[in-house]
Amino acid sequence: MIADTPPPPYTAVIFTSVQKSPNPDGYAQAARDMEQLAARQPGYLGFESARDSLGIGVSYWATAEDALRWKQVVEHRAVQRIGAEHWYADYRVRIATVERDYGLQK
Amino acid sequence: MIADTPPPPYTAVIFTSVQKSPNPDGYAQAARDMEQLAARQPGYLGFESARDSLGIGVSYWATAEDALRWKQVVEHRAVQRIGAEHWYADYRVRIATVERDYGLQK
Repeated sequence: MIADTPPPPYTAVIFTSVQKSPNPDGYAQAARDMEQLAARQPGYLGFESARDSLGIGVSYWATAEDALRWKQVVEHRAVQRIGAEHWYADYRVRIATVERDYGLQK
Repeated sequence: MIADTPPPPYTAVIFTSVQKSPNPDGYAQAARDMEQLAARQPGYLGFESARDSLGIGVSYWATAEDALRWKQVVEHRAVQRIGAEHWYADYRVRIATVERDYGLQK
């Protein structure tokens, strides 16, 4: 569940969102589809997500260019448009370079 | 709920965790206390969190030095120790520089 990312540096895309209502139509299937599609893109390193009243999804990429390419994948753009119009009351996307990491088990 | 961060660059600390069991003793109160204490530290910009089977908390700081100082605050160190020993089966901390952001409403 915790993404097994390589040593830094790498890119993190932090997507924080508030849904208009819980479990909107089509959301769960689209989320699964996008996770699987993202995992097949060049430079994909992993994905983590959690949701209660707020949703946070973090995708990890080898480079900022890989993250940008994923943003532009046609199927992903279509889902972004549906999300902006129908699912989300608000969201924020932050593109960041991970410079250091550590954990309990490593 | 979505942190109202200033224009980049700024620092994000992404804390991803798996709890040994849901709602461990002392966790909820400690989380509230640490959110309030963090908000009083120099360079604090905001905090976002969500938890289902995975927990993700992201704190935002003006600089990497501010984030490091927060890690070393005595009360915070005590809670980190309790977490590592009692609450978490695993966690990962990633320190990142946010270089770009955008959202639905800005």
